[in-house]
Amino acid sequence: MGLEISPLAPPNIAPLPDLHGVGIQVAHTGLRYKNRNDLLLITFPTGYFAVGGLTRSKTRSAPVDWCRQLLAGHGRARACLVNAGNANAFTGRAGDALVQTTMRALATQHSLPNDELYCASTGVIGVKLPANALADQLPKLQPANWLDAARAIMTTDTFPKTSTQSLSIGGQNYTINAIAKGSGMIAPNMGTMLVFMATNAPLERAKTQKILTRAIDDSFNSITVDGDTSTSDTLLLFAPQAQNPLTNGDWRNVTRAINAICHDLALQVVKDGEGAQKLIEIRVNGAKNRASARNIGLAIGNSPLIKTAIAGEDANWGRVVMAVGKCGEPASRDKLSISFGDTLVARDGEAVEGYDETPVAAHLKTRHIIITTDVGVGKASAIVYSCDLTHGYIDINADYRS
Amino acid sequence: MGLEISPLAPPNIAPLPDLHGVGIQVAHTGLRYKNRNDLLLITFPTGYFAVGGLTRSKTRSAPVDWCRQLLAGHGRARACLVNAGNANAFTGRAGDALVQTTMRALATQHSLPNDELYCASTGVIGVKLPANALADQLPKLQPANWLDAARAIMTTDTFPKTSTQSLSIGGQNYTINAIAKGSGMIAPNMGTMLVFMATNAPLERAKTQKILTRAIDDSFNSITVDGDTSTSDTLLLFAPQAQNPLTNGDWRNVTRAINAICHDLALQVVKDGEGAQKLIEIRVNGAKNRASARNIGLAIGNSPLIKTAIAGEDANWGRVVMAVGKCGEPASRDKLSISFGDTLVARDGEAVEGYDETPVAAHLKTRHIIITTDVGVGKASAIVYSCDLTHGYIDINADYRS
Repeated sequence: MGLEISPLAPPNIAPLPDLHGVGIQVAHTGLRYKNRNDLLLITFPTGYFAVGGLTRSKTRSAPVDWCRQLLAGHGRARACLVNAGNANAFTGRAGDALVQTTMRALATQHSLPNDELYCASTGVIGVKLPANALADQLPKLQPANWLDAARAIMTTDTFPKTSTQSLSIGGQNYTINAIAKGSGMIAPNMGTMLVFMATNAPLERAKTQKILTRAIDDSFNSITVDGDTSTSDTLLLFAPQAQNPLTNGDWRNVTRAINAICHDLALQVVKDGEGAQKLIEIRVNGAKNRASARNIGLAIGNSPLIKTAIAGEDANWGRVVMAVGKCGEPASRDKLSISFGDTLVARDGEAVEGYDETPVAAHLKTRHIIITTDVGVGKASAIVYSCDLTHGYIDINADYRS
Repeated sequence: MGLEISPLAPPNIAPLPDLHGVGIQVAHTGLRYKNRNDLLLITFPTGYFAVGGLTRSKTRSAPVDWCRQLLAGHGRARACLVNAGNANAFTGRAGDALVQTTMRALATQHSLPNDELYCASTGVIGVKLPANALADQLPKLQPANWLDAARAIMTTDTFPKTSTQSLSIGGQNYTINAIAKGSGMIAPNMGTMLVFMATNAPLERAKTQKILTRAIDDSFNSITVDGDTSTSDTLLLFAPQAQNPLTNGDWRNVTRAINAICHDLALQVVKDGEGAQKLIEIRVNGAKNRASARNIGLAIGNSPLIKTAIAGEDANWGRVVMAVGKCGEPASRDKLSISFGDTLVARDGEAVEGYDETPVAAHLKTRHIIITTDVGVGKASAIVYSCDLTHGYIDINADYRS
């Protein structure tokens, strides 16, 4: 997209190992982008299932509708097709026709059952494509690796997002690979968050869904770039069905690996927030419960006044007070404390005596800002990640289509 | 504040007539501002009562606590004291002491009952003043007019906000005067929305509160600059107690006048939004109920992606789809329609056939942008006002304290 790589990008892109039996293919459709791949197919051996999380948007895209139906059923999975450049959202019946035609062609060409094929689209909203626009491109798909896959689903991302974990089940070692895209909850008309995870570790579907849902809450549902929710957000995890029950220890390993991948990728998404120059980590303690803590964190992370203050390296803690107060969650004004970095700036509802702004000012000059607040009503905690609001965000979003 | 006057400012400031018996006094405290008044006292004859609306923030200021207690009681009102420059919010016991000492001094110096004295503060959060800081300034108060009053309560406002209406009760003509401040729900560390209304029309308290609450919902609660809620928002209306019951026709006149003033001042507040270059009027139709319509309108009005698109004069209607979808209110994706200005861009969940962007582009070059959406699930409507998100907003808010 010609955008500069985010200054918060990780220094290295994690190389992902091959997953035996899991196939990766990419293609260049020419539908929107020049000189880059924009179509991805991941295939799975028989015996794989899918679990996932989809956008709660009331104006969700046709591919999201498709996946929702499949996830509600038997959940078997043989392939996942993703295109970048057109979100196939708000496209009416043409959008449904595009999905159906594409899935039918994929089923025919690869001899796979139609109801085991998942799909996702990201890109411009409201632009209809002919029903065969993607089906016609399927023959172009060529074998590729996981990094190619991560690159093929980018839109306004400034770097590809990958993550991998190994885990042990029944004493055997397995791998989970994952790729993601997204820079902004919905980025410049082209955005969305997509995450695809695949493993060779044998798992059980219902329990895996439960672990994944919790992991999503603590990661992708705990990050914000602009508070805007895409019509197309899709996270899918593909795994082979276990033949033998896993032990509690096995499940702990699974949970740890899934949590680690979700946390890693969610942070990469925030770090690629449009115009982001600083990562903001918001630690909320003393809340009534976990959901309340997260809501308070999101109120802080979504506040344009706080995001601009961080951009300006301004220790404007009064705005944190405001955000805690506005969000409607239980909080005690007279017990509230706030820190920037390691420095306590307010305690028991007022500024600390002899508050020295020097260490706070130094902390605000770094790339990773930590705001901690204790809201004084309970014992629950949450961590939320956001990024600063800069002139770059406005440049990207005001001028994108022109 | 050295800020340029908003390009959306009304060409003329409404001059307010004197209200017989209602006294205005202003002073320059020197606590924060040089060369301008920053303290306002409005006094009322005996027989006046107060009604109002206060911030729902959980971290509300000491003056808001004070007014809340008074409004819950007999509601008689003899005076209202307002200072600009220090919000007396998040100031702990020192904040309460400041309010109590100030009110006691005002009661003594003016021989007024302590529990009929209202107050409001706007300005920096978390900075404590000595308990007698305002009391010591009271002797400086000098008679002034309503425009002086509007100027004395400004913080980052670029123009003073006034409004007046005449109304007939029992065949007699009366006046309602009002002043407001606020540019940003909470402006650069110095912000808040304050509104003070006074009338010589004899009214009844409970019924007036009801009319005012409804008027606030449709005006001040239907505007947004940045979605941030101040710790100090205060609206107070002062009126003499009627000796005779009002007719239904009288109450209709009262309702009309209060609605008109609230609407006028709310629009002035949005037009003075930080960095605002365009007013955005969002008309939501076809919603399940009025509150749902307003929530959808606020989701659109608060979306940074929509606000930046408008700043960039970009007819990015996909972002409106996104905002309707994300807010959780009932909406039918497949019946959704969207217009910019007079031009229908999407209908029944998809772009209109042969959509011509030319008239939309022309509309987006104006100062007053109208976005209309029908969400296709009911008959309720609401109008919400917002402003665009520009580089000016970031300049003001990132760099204010430095």
